[in-house]
Amino acid sequence: MSTTTKTYGVDAADQPLRPSYIERRDLRPDDVAIEILYCGVCHSDLHQARNEWGNSRYPMVPGHEIIGRVTAVGSAVSMWRMGDSVGVGCMVDSCHACSSCQEGLEQYCEEGATFTYNSVDRHDRSPTYGGYSERIVVDQKFVLRIPAGLPLQAAAPLLCAGITTYSPLRHWRIGPGMQVGVVGLGGLGHMALKFAAALGAEVTLFTRSEDKKSEAIRLGAHEVILSTDAEQMSLAGHRFDFILDTVPHPHDLNPYLSTLKRDGQLVLVGVLEPIAPPVQARLLIGGRRSISGSVIGGIAETQEMLDFCAKHSITADIELLDIKDINQAYERMLDSDVRYRFVIDMATL
Amino acid sequence: MSTTTKTYGVDAADQPLRPSYIERRDLRPDDVAIEILYCGVCHSDLHQARNEWGNSRYPMVPGHEIIGRVTAVGSAVSMWRMGDSVGVGCMVDSCHACSSCQEGLEQYCEEGATFTYNSVDRHDRSPTYGGYSERIVVDQKFVLRIPAGLPLQAAAPLLCAGITTYSPLRHWRIGPGMQVGVVGLGGLGHMALKFAAALGAEVTLFTRSEDKKSEAIRLGAHEVILSTDAEQMSLAGHRFDFILDTVPHPHDLNPYLSTLKRDGQLVLVGVLEPIAPPVQARLLIGGRRSISGSVIGGIAETQEMLDFCAKHSITADIELLDIKDINQAYERMLDSDVRYRFVIDMATL
Repeated sequence: MSTTTKTYGVDAADQPLRPSYIERRDLRPDDVAIEILYCGVCHSDLHQARNEWGNSRYPMVPGHEIIGRVTAVGSAVSMWRMGDSVGVGCMVDSCHACSSCQEGLEQYCEEGATFTYNSVDRHDRSPTYGGYSERIVVDQKFVLRIPAGLPLQAAAPLLCAGITTYSPLRHWRIGPGMQVGVVGLGGLGHMALKFAAALGAEVTLFTRSEDKKSEAIRLGAHEVILSTDAEQMSLAGHRFDFILDTVPHPHDLNPYLSTLKRDGQLVLVGVLEPIAPPVQARLLIGGRRSISGSVIGGIAETQEMLDFCAKHSITADIELLDIKDINQAYERMLDSDVRYRFVIDMATL
Repeated sequence: MSTTTKTYGVDAADQPLRPSYIERRDLRPDDVAIEILYCGVCHSDLHQARNEWGNSRYPMVPGHEIIGRVTAVGSAVSMWRMGDSVGVGCMVDSCHACSSCQEGLEQYCEEGATFTYNSVDRHDRSPTYGGYSERIVVDQKFVLRIPAGLPLQAAAPLLCAGITTYSPLRHWRIGPGMQVGVVGLGGLGHMALKFAAALGAEVTLFTRSEDKKSEAIRLGAHEVILSTDAEQMSLAGHRFDFILDTVPHPHDLNPYLSTLKRDGQLVLVGVLEPIAPPVQARLLIGGRRSISGSVIGGIAETQEMLDFCAKHSITADIELLDIKDINQAYERMLDSDVRYRFVIDMATL
């Protein structure tokens, strides 16, 4: 048994998204049914719709920045009630048994987490379909509570862009007195500026665009360094405790490494494959610096992030989108022509 | 005023080492004069003698694994007496003022430490000359005490190969219950096996040579993984907390990254320039793994390491060398034909 559900999906890497229908499963005992109100548009939606990571399954329904309301709950559900404002992010399940899952770090599940779309359900091996859709059915443990007071549409990007930047800032204990750099001002970068500032750090944006300065300051940066200006970069040598690099395509990391203090950390959240030009080992060795990576965050930490956002009045800066414009929105995203995240108004479906 | 001092030096990148004379300064108030008994031969001696790092100054006297006896002390020297068994490692001075120096991490001195050779004295701008020499004059703060009971000739390599591997193992808090990998079994690798085992870790050597297995076990490894065997490498996936990579030339780091657990660290101590083939970002991001680097260790930590060696009866495995054979030793070092460190008997000078 299942419920026919209206979506926007894609049938092949070279096809545009178009209206389509899928089947959503009937509720298992632990499931929650959610009417989707808003869904953010993530760069990885585009990567996967176009099979740029080589692992796409079609038909695909993208979307993992989902905000909605609970419309039904399974027989064993105790955490949620009809009408609750909830979110679903990048994951809908994991193994629950490995050390990462046991520590609440489901994103690093050793068996691999079940992703919200372009993945396979662990129980019935059916494909998972994402949030460009009128409804979704999700295990209650992977549902997030949207705190009262957070505007729903601007909260959608928190489920991916938000947690992806919040998690490393928390893991590496960013706080007052620390010099934090953020590379890139897109969907992730603009959240990183807000979070790093709210955590009390001294925040600097690295950007290639002089004209982003006033925007960066508005979003929480205390300073902007033009990464194309060798003199500005040189003056920033040995300055930063931590740099969060949000740029989702290959670029030279070496100039950023030089701006780290001894024991400084450069953390990648964009999937740049490969890291080119190559990293100079002496920049690591000479200052005991590190390059690390981080992916989204665990479910408990995602809830913590949402609560932090409510407390600090943080949401994403968004442009609300009619779903019929989704293909055009992908092109604009490729041109970095969005401030700073598209969110689909699912009422337009 | 100065003292003419017999050495083995090199006059140009394409010349062999040969007997020569330099001038050693008269003692400043804080200086200690040391009669050199033994000097280890480090791979970086060869790199610099041949100007492979592009920063060589000639004439050059290599050598920074120095063991000797105090023969004279300056008027302000309180720490040392005639006849003390002492060591000198890679550094002979630093700025003493930056945060790294204040924290006892002179190797990361923000002005750049003064190295034992191929460097310039901070006071009189004279060149520094290393340990392939009958004597050396060094500021008392950069002299190490050789604990009673450590055999002097086998202690020489501790001053570079020892501290270079000990420092990262301590910084990343290696201890019981941890899975530690060591890449490469040379001068550094053989010390890393001994230290990691003495610190209580479960130690695995990664090597390309099947025939190094029994040696590795003798030196402290509990297991050996043949890095050229894809199946062995695959079976080691997600296993290690920490890998110390001692290989001093470019090689693929990606297979090692795959063997790290979530939050695992790969630490480079060899200067591989550049890191090629490029690192796959998804191996960092997918497990919050890090690549870091580390260089030698601070003076206080070097003393701690020497005391640790005395307590645990750790020294280097060496081949004692007549200094007239130094050029041949460089060739054998290039062929990895040394178990595991050459030490020059300075009585042969």
